[in-house]
Amino acid sequence: MNLILLFDDDFIKAGNSVRLKDHRLRHVIDVHQASEGDELTVGLLNGKMGVGHLTFLSPEAMEMDVTLNVEPPPSLPLTLIMALPRPKVLKRVLRTISAMGVKRLFLINSWRVEKSYWQSPALEEEKIREQLVLGLEQAKDTVLPEVMLRRLFKAFVEDELPGLIKDSMSLVAHPIADALCPRDVRQPVTLAIGPEGGFIPYEIEKLEACGFKTVNLGERILTVETAVPVLLARLF
Amino acid sequence: MNLILLFDDDFIKAGNSVRLKDHRLRHVIDVHQASEGDELTVGLLNGKMGVGHLTFLSPEAMEMDVTLNVEPPPSLPLTLIMALPRPKVLKRVLRTISAMGVKRLFLINSWRVEKSYWQSPALEEEKIREQLVLGLEQAKDTVLPEVMLRRLFKAFVEDELPGLIKDSMSLVAHPIADALCPRDVRQPVTLAIGPEGGFIPYEIEKLEACGFKTVNLGERILTVETAVPVLLARLF
Repeated sequence: MNLILLFDDDFIKAGNSVRLKDHRLRHVIDVHQASEGDELTVGLLNGKMGVGHLTFLSPEAMEMDVTLNVEPPPSLPLTLIMALPRPKVLKRVLRTISAMGVKRLFLINSWRVEKSYWQSPALEEEKIREQLVLGLEQAKDTVLPEVMLRRLFKAFVEDELPGLIKDSMSLVAHPIADALCPRDVRQPVTLAIGPEGGFIPYEIEKLEACGFKTVNLGERILTVETAVPVLLARLF
Repeated sequence: MNLILLFDDDFIKAGNSVRLKDHRLRHVIDVHQASEGDELTVGLLNGKMGVGHLTFLSPEAMEMDVTLNVEPPPSLPLTLIMALPRPKVLKRVLRTISAMGVKRLFLINSWRVEKSYWQSPALEEEKIREQLVLGLEQAKDTVLPEVMLRRLFKAFVEDELPGLIKDSMSLVAHPIADALCPRDVRQPVTLAIGPEGGFIPYEIEKLEACGFKTVNLGERILTVETAVPVLLARLF
């Protein structure tokens, strides 16, 4: 936790003091090993970042006077579309994309997505948010990504995707594509990533018909978990 | 498992037939759902890749006639030096670097590496090899990376590193560096990555004295697990 993320209901009195009792208190005691008087990096959810001056610390609660005057880091000009991965992978991918500055993610169905994944508790709004917050706290950011679930591939691609990709470079990662993924594109991108095993030919055709270009990452087949940071690092 | 990695002692008779009974058999039955007559992608450890023609399959064993005539994919011209991460992270990082084509990794000590990490069973030669093999099987490669353990930071940097970095671009990832990590360098690189929390100033000074240049990845602080694929994807 390189930044303590604050929420509106952490604030006490009418002003700039917060009182924390949850895992953030534990972290400040156990990991930061902080004392009263210390300054900690803080940020307000979807707001500015700054410094928290520790005015009170006990095993039950901590209080800080906070000054919020620093803009969060720039986000990536990216809409990410991912076939829903298995729950364990999903959790890590959510932390990764949140830490890397992705602000819009669509989790979609695909032929090779196991139906059971859609029943996972990891998809509950609160669980998704938990992982996204961990990513923000890691990377020092405050802007929570939006995550949308779309269980119907065809309806999503035909009805919603054409509007989403407007004015962006639209790419789909596909191991057998002819072209390598471009580098340092300096423009908005819509990037689609398939499940382990890849999108099936029908799905690739639907995405191509919508305007997507298939790109690969070389001869090596990477897991989704590795492919996501690799693709983002190449593109931006 | 996108490639079944074969070892010398898998071969039966004097020739090109292999007999497998271990987790690879399970995988071929459960995941590939293969039948006799099928062709599977195979590769010989540190040798060529090719096709295995399934001649016999039972719940107890499988046999393939293999043809090995394809070179494995090119490796990265990189020596990676990493402060030893915690065991769980180490396992994932080993899979990632193996899949991405790193062939030489030094795991070193650093001030912020917890001493207990050096006692972890994950550091046993067999355990390290297990993760590296998983990475090769994922990416379709056969060339096992070398992993070296160095428990003395100063001795490593002073005595061994000067020889290792010859004729390479030497970079150390450091969040507060002035320069961004370069892209697409097309030359050999020696890359050092610190522990969570980073190398301490003394360690950075020692690396700089040896010829390393500090580079960052922007404002965001990434975990080691994410930083590794991001750095490799930028550099190559």
